[in-house]
Amino acid sequence: MVYIGIDVGGTGIKIGVVDEAGTLLCQGETPTLVGRPYEDIIRDMGNCMLRVMEDGGYTAEDVEAIGVGIPGIADAATGNVIFCTNMGWKDVPLRTELQKYLNKPVHIDNDATVAGFAESVCGVSAGCHSSVFITLGTGVGGGIVIGGRPWSGFHGVGSEIGHIPMDIGGEPCSCGNYGCLERYCSATAIIRMGKQMVLQHPDSLMYDMCGGDISKLTAKTVFDAAKEEDDVAMKVFNHYVDYLCKACYTIIAFLDPEMIVLGGGVSKAGSFLLKAVQERIPRYLLFKTLPYSRIEIARLGADAGMIGAAMLGKPIKEASSNG
Amino acid sequence: MVYIGIDVGGTGIKIGVVDEAGTLLCQGETPTLVGRPYEDIIRDMGNCMLRVMEDGGYTAEDVEAIGVGIPGIADAATGNVIFCTNMGWKDVPLRTELQKYLNKPVHIDNDATVAGFAESVCGVSAGCHSSVFITLGTGVGGGIVIGGRPWSGFHGVGSEIGHIPMDIGGEPCSCGNYGCLERYCSATAIIRMGKQMVLQHPDSLMYDMCGGDISKLTAKTVFDAAKEEDDVAMKVFNHYVDYLCKACYTIIAFLDPEMIVLGGGVSKAGSFLLKAVQERIPRYLLFKTLPYSRIEIARLGADAGMIGAAMLGKPIKEASSNG
Repeated sequence: MVYIGIDVGGTGIKIGVVDEAGTLLCQGETPTLVGRPYEDIIRDMGNCMLRVMEDGGYTAEDVEAIGVGIPGIADAATGNVIFCTNMGWKDVPLRTELQKYLNKPVHIDNDATVAGFAESVCGVSAGCHSSVFITLGTGVGGGIVIGGRPWSGFHGVGSEIGHIPMDIGGEPCSCGNYGCLERYCSATAIIRMGKQMVLQHPDSLMYDMCGGDISKLTAKTVFDAAKEEDDVAMKVFNHYVDYLCKACYTIIAFLDPEMIVLGGGVSKAGSFLLKAVQERIPRYLLFKTLPYSRIEIARLGADAGMIGAAMLGKPIKEASSNG
Repeated sequence: MVYIGIDVGGTGIKIGVVDEAGTLLCQGETPTLVGRPYEDIIRDMGNCMLRVMEDGGYTAEDVEAIGVGIPGIADAATGNVIFCTNMGWKDVPLRTELQKYLNKPVHIDNDATVAGFAESVCGVSAGCHSSVFITLGTGVGGGIVIGGRPWSGFHGVGSEIGHIPMDIGGEPCSCGNYGCLERYCSATAIIRMGKQMVLQHPDSLMYDMCGGDISKLTAKTVFDAAKEEDDVAMKVFNHYVDYLCKACYTIIAFLDPEMIVLGGGVSKAGSFLLKAVQERIPRYLLFKTLPYSRIEIARLGADAGMIGAAMLGKPIKEASSNG
């Protein structure tokens, strides 16, 4: 049996056929074209799904279930998308609509949650009992896995790690609160800090790297200049690492998972970022001599969404499964 | 069958016999007398346990298991207490020593964790799938229950809610970090804020209530004066409620449990505190129209430690238990 995984993004919808082990067997994509009626978007989604299956040589009988990762919140009972801000979706009957194309169980969960779940099935946290995945992108998302299963909370509104209050009365956040974690740990935060520093220090390598046009400064600019040991970029980088360590420490002090997985665009910095975080985190730990969560970089990249969504439909392994 | 629950505190060790439903059948207590060799303390503990059993008419055959709640961290595999700062304990073989008195399985966990577990067995969160218990006392402790079982983390260092960073560069904490949650949400924080305000406003009712001796000001003084609508006390109370709401919101944004339970000394303020928190929390929520964790006051009071410790030994209900 195979599983269909659908990763819904603001630009494109990626659809893959995945086996039980989380291997991506074949895939396709269709543009989202946000702004259209949801029926049109789901029609393209449904047709793309059937096309991907056909291209891969899979029939409806081969498919166990369909999983969808959305940048929003879904109701597990009804299969309705409650919110999906980037898509302009509110109360969209995604399950019912999608079943018109392939009548199989449809599981829907948050995109960061399914990406974290994918890592725990066949990525860096494979085999871990518990893990917390953090996507470090424009914002900060979270995916919690406990006992090998994704956990989006009892009401489905949890794992919103980006909106944990980190600095009372700090930077205003788009959510209406102040000092949310994502104001300090996102790529957006790196860019904000980088721009502030370049304005104060135009002699920084970062200024040259973005051709003197500060509006072109990215998180990569900051990290690349830091790798070149530019003092100003190093300062921004160290500041960012410090915030990220506090985010990791928040996860350790609260949930203490077996592993913390860093994903999203910022995590592409790889070992340069990872080593800095691993080196600095011990200073924050409450119990300095005891073991704590391993911190690693995500492995599955852009495929994590499809794989994790597909794996939502995988039956839960029972401890007492008899052969 | 019955379960022995032992609640180890800095002043006294409380021991109870508890049935499967979490009912306290009989109990006793022995002074801790901190500073003695651990062998002496565990000897008193063991003898008190046997005395309580005898007084209640229970024999060793009636006892299924022993559970111990400690103000520290234990190793679940070895049954050793790793740290127990208030007791001056480090690497104490509590399980082995205790089994010399009654040779039964011994389970050890953090005191806030077992108190939260007790509430989920037969207290305010009974029947909840998931809950987070917060003890609001001298410090702030946490107890997480997921799927009906206590969760102290993969390495046993989690649920340390009091040390989640809440204010970067905020109040220094005894743990070495700055701006830990317990600096704002503990009874200690109420007293600190109350004293600061009374010094600035000696016309406050709080000044009279502590007989003009500010060193006698307690969290209860602040709450009692706030109930009398003293402006200055109201300000401290509202400030505290605001912090506590941010703590609850941190729990919701991260874990989204079915219920958040407020326990510890500060929670004795009951509905006066609860109503204020319930009223103010919606302003922080990310998804303002969706259901979120119920917030309630703990019910079991000082017995929660014994009951929860005892229940650690209760067999885990299997969904697929075969007769």
